[in-house]
Amino acid sequence: MSSLEAKGARVAASGEEVARQAHVIMTMLPATQHVQAVFGDIIIPHARNGTLLIDGSTIDPTASKALAARAKTMGLDMVDAPVSGGVGGAEAGTLTFMVGGDVQCVKKAERSMLRHMGKKVVHCGPVGTGAIAKICNNLILGINMVGVAEAMRLGVALGMDPHILNGVVNASSGRSWVTETYNPCPTVVPSAPSSHDYQGGFASKLMQKDLGIAGDAAKVVGVPLPLGAAAQQLYALMQVNGLGNKDFSSVYRFLEGARGSDSSKNETRGERE
Amino acid sequence: MSSLEAKGARVAASGEEVARQAHVIMTMLPATQHVQAVFGDIIIPHARNGTLLIDGSTIDPTASKALAARAKTMGLDMVDAPVSGGVGGAEAGTLTFMVGGDVQCVKKAERSMLRHMGKKVVHCGPVGTGAIAKICNNLILGINMVGVAEAMRLGVALGMDPHILNGVVNASSGRSWVTETYNPCPTVVPSAPSSHDYQGGFASKLMQKDLGIAGDAAKVVGVPLPLGAAAQQLYALMQVNGLGNKDFSSVYRFLEGARGSDSSKNETRGERE
Amino acid sequence: MSSLEAKGARVAASGEEVARQAHVIMTMLPATQHVQAVFGDIIIPHARNGTLLIDGSTIDPTASKALAARAKTMGLDMVDAPVSGGVGGAEAGTLTFMVGGDVQCVKKAERSMLRHMGKKVVHCGPVGTGAIAKICNNLILGINMVGVAEAMRLGVALGMDPHILNGVVNASSGRSWVTETYNPCPTVVPSAPSSHDYQGGFASKLMQKDLGIAGDAAKVVGVPLPLGAAAQQLYALMQVNGLGNKDFSSVYRFLEGARGSDSSKNETRGERE
Amino acid sequence: MSSLEAKGARVAASGEEVARQAHVIMTMLPATQHVQAVFGDIIIPHARNGTLLIDGSTIDPTASKALAARAKTMGLDMVDAPVSGGVGGAEAGTLTFMVGGDVQCVKKAERSMLRHMGKKVVHCGPVGTGAIAKICNNLILGINMVGVAEAMRLGVALGMDPHILNGVVNASSGRSWVTETYNPCPTVVPSAPSSHDYQGGFASKLMQKDLGIAGDAAKVVGVPLPLGAAAQQLYALMQVNGLGNKDFSSVYRFLEGARGSDSSKNETRGERE
Repeated sequence: MSSLEAKGARVAASGEEVARQAHVIMTMLPATQHVQAVFGDIIIPHARNGTLLIDGSTIDPTASKALAARAKTMGLDMVDAPVSGGVGGAEAGTLTFMVGGDVQCVKKAERSMLRHMGKKVVHCGPVGTGAIAKICNNLILGINMVGVAEAMRLGVALGMDPHILNGVVNASSGRSWVTETYNPCPTVVPSAPSSHDYQGGFASKLMQKDLGIAGDAAKVVGVPLPLGAAAQQLYALMQVNGLGNKDFSSVYRFLEGARGSDSSKNETRGERE
Repeated sequence: MSSLEAKGARVAASGEEVARQAHVIMTMLPATQHVQAVFGDIIIPHARNGTLLIDGSTIDPTASKALAARAKTMGLDMVDAPVSGGVGGAEAGTLTFMVGGDVQCVKKAERSMLRHMGKKVVHCGPVGTGAIAKICNNLILGINMVGVAEAMRLGVALGMDPHILNGVVNASSGRSWVTETYNPCPTVVPSAPSSHDYQGGFASKLMQKDLGIAGDAAKVVGVPLPLGAAAQQLYALMQVNGLGNKDFSSVYRFLEGARGSDSSKNETRGERE
Repeated sequence: MSSLEAKGARVAASGEEVARQAHVIMTMLPATQHVQAVFGDIIIPHARNGTLLIDGSTIDPTASKALAARAKTMGLDMVDAPVSGGVGGAEAGTLTFMVGGDVQCVKKAERSMLRHMGKKVVHCGPVGTGAIAKICNNLILGINMVGVAEAMRLGVALGMDPHILNGVVNASSGRSWVTETYNPCPTVVPSAPSSHDYQGGFASKLMQKDLGIAGDAAKVVGVPLPLGAAAQQLYALMQVNGLGNKDFSSVYRFLEGARGSDSSKNETRGERE
Repeated sequence: MSSLEAKGARVAASGEEVARQAHVIMTMLPATQHVQAVFGDIIIPHARNGTLLIDGSTIDPTASKALAARAKTMGLDMVDAPVSGGVGGAEAGTLTFMVGGDVQCVKKAERSMLRHMGKKVVHCGPVGTGAIAKICNNLILGINMVGVAEAMRLGVALGMDPHILNGVVNASSGRSWVTETYNPCPTVVPSAPSSHDYQGGFASKLMQKDLGIAGDAAKVVGVPLPLGAAAQQLYALMQVNGLGNKDFSSVYRFLEGARGSDSSKNETRGERE
């Protein structure tokens, strides 16, 4: 905060002070319960009438809707604006915000805040649809990544050159953002985390968390997610195998039997095939 | 055959006669065992030295390699050339052939046959790599389709407009050939089978078969395919639920509890939620 | 309540009145949030010092622990006492209670209440272990039921007599409570729900709920549950296919392509294989 | 063979000689293709009319039926007699044979051979039913083991004593051969492989193979095996993680993130959570 202060920002003494003074308040918190606590105990009780609340967290869409309704009764506007693009996107200013809320609120959020932080603002519909779009997108991404990893691993094990294989897939019906820009097989896409020891990118444990949010929402509305649940369990297995902080594309390595380095405490006396 | 004969084709009395007279022989058969039988009992024993054999079937890549080796000992060249694009692609002449074999053989296959049947011929490497590319591509496709169906179904159940949701996904990391051209949610892509009651396209039971070939090959080389296996079982469940002949994107309907029409014999006396 | 009153029970006007007057209070509620609401808003604020609280609900074990700690600060003792045995067990008085709490509290709970309601009271350890034991038991049960259903279905489809198959399994390493008393294949165990159109017993949707509680607890402690999650999704698929109110052993019928009767609204125009 | 010869056995110079001279021939081979080769090329062509063939291998039931039919045309009787009980059972003479064939043949097989090798001979029906019973039993076992491992792991992670947990399960609907005699959590059952570093018992890779046979048979008859396939993939993941030669109950350790010792070549530079 002091480095921001040095650049001219005003630093408040507490959350309550922020709530009382700011016209636009943006939050980006780890999980649903944190957002509920900060909005319920600090922001909604103390914010001034007419303040715009922008929540950039990825949380349960039904929780977003409930908070927005409660904020409304206090004369506060809220939009949910989860973000995609990762740490790299934040540093480069190329984040995409998926925003749910009334048109005027979304415009105000974009003008006052979001367009300075990212490259793209997509209006998804009423409050909560930002979160819905985000978790649905990541549900597809988390599943597709495993699928591409399985296929690349199989192709390589059967003796095919992974670069040629990826070329064929990209010219065919297997093509996706993953195969084109983020292939989990090392060296196939030089700029992808897989070509840099799966550093950076989007950690497996975060993908597991997002799939968990999708699963929780699916339970509420009675939608089966058979592959979503299976993918979530794979990322959970990766986490107990020391790959939780690696990029989620390291599922490719997990299929090879690789694991994170700090594995000594779980070493058993078995033998390797 | 008589309609082809009327157009000038010569019809042989038997497979043996074809083998003895043709310079280039192309086969497209349902499964590995059929290809093994036709090549082993008819083509390889009777074909003339120097004949080019083009197998367009989607079969186990290790079987393709073995047949090619055996053909070689008899002075016969073989390429494997599985095809993607479906019935629609065949009628429109827009099929893609994924071809494995020696460069000269692949060129000869393309010149003599394949370029008259399809739009694109991709050389994948030595014999067997056509099949490898095909099953790896379809492994990705079969998994990704389920992922997109789960996400679209979840988004719709949570109250989001599927057209807007698909637009967001296509601008983000969930983008793929499926979301862009073949979305499983009806009306999102007007030309997709989902917008035409899942008619045409690629039947669920054929996708199940291709995932089975991938699974068999994976067992041989010791590669786990957790999502591939889970997707295969979903397509198998769809098949016992009367959706086997529908396009494989009908997994979207299966997640809603839809099924094929001829279900009376399995009707039980339960109640619906 | 009036029928109980006629038999000599005293009926209170409100939950608060119960809390203020009873020495022992037993609750049995659908889900974690209901228990939290009733304990947090009604029982804990109003109960007299020294009251014993017995919660028979199947809920998240960490929630039980938290409520017990909060009750303690108000001078209230709490045990968690989830029950197994189903509606049949309740009517026959053969329920099993899995109880977590201090020894004296568990003894008092048994003496004052539980032994009049069930046949067996098992002390599982400190508060929360009743719930842990219950969800772990049901996790095993929910998975094993699917496994037995798959195997019986496969054996029958391959032409083996299901009674003989079950006999062999019961003499071998596949033996379990399910194969011995609750086989999902009709007629194999005449007293099982499967032999009575899957009526009674334990509904699929309740098994799905219990697997969901296990999954939520597993996320908190970082334990992967790959088959637990897969089984939960199958029960979810059964629910959208009209089998949610049937006994959970109706997964056998689901593997055959059977579904509940009220399926017309989901009928599509497909064909059955 | 020389040690057997020293004890009075006659050793033949070749398989053909065995086929020509023996009245009863018993085989126990790794997989379907080996049985097909030995029966097809050696035994059936050379055995004397009236010879009884006993195949103790665990193979595809449809292959057994086909071989028996072919043997019949040569005047040979065949029974399939897969065995359960493992290496320990073989040494202790407590194996169980699951036998398919005509009543007289099964009796003759028992009298001449099987009762000297095992404790129990179960007649399962016509030829092929021995294999059906074996793979169906192992399908249940392979799934149930994972279920018990997940539940024990969850209970322990939530803080419950595994001995007490297993006691509760054994008194309830989670009870099975696994929980009673083969619990995957170390020390719970002192005689189980889990209490001896998962040595001995039945290797994960063999369980994976048996689940593969079940899966192949299921494809032929169109039966979905969702949990069977998921369990098979878990055992496959264990194999690439160095646990393929450990007892299959080591899935408990895999859920903890344990692996076999010879893992250095797959070590990546990640960090452990």
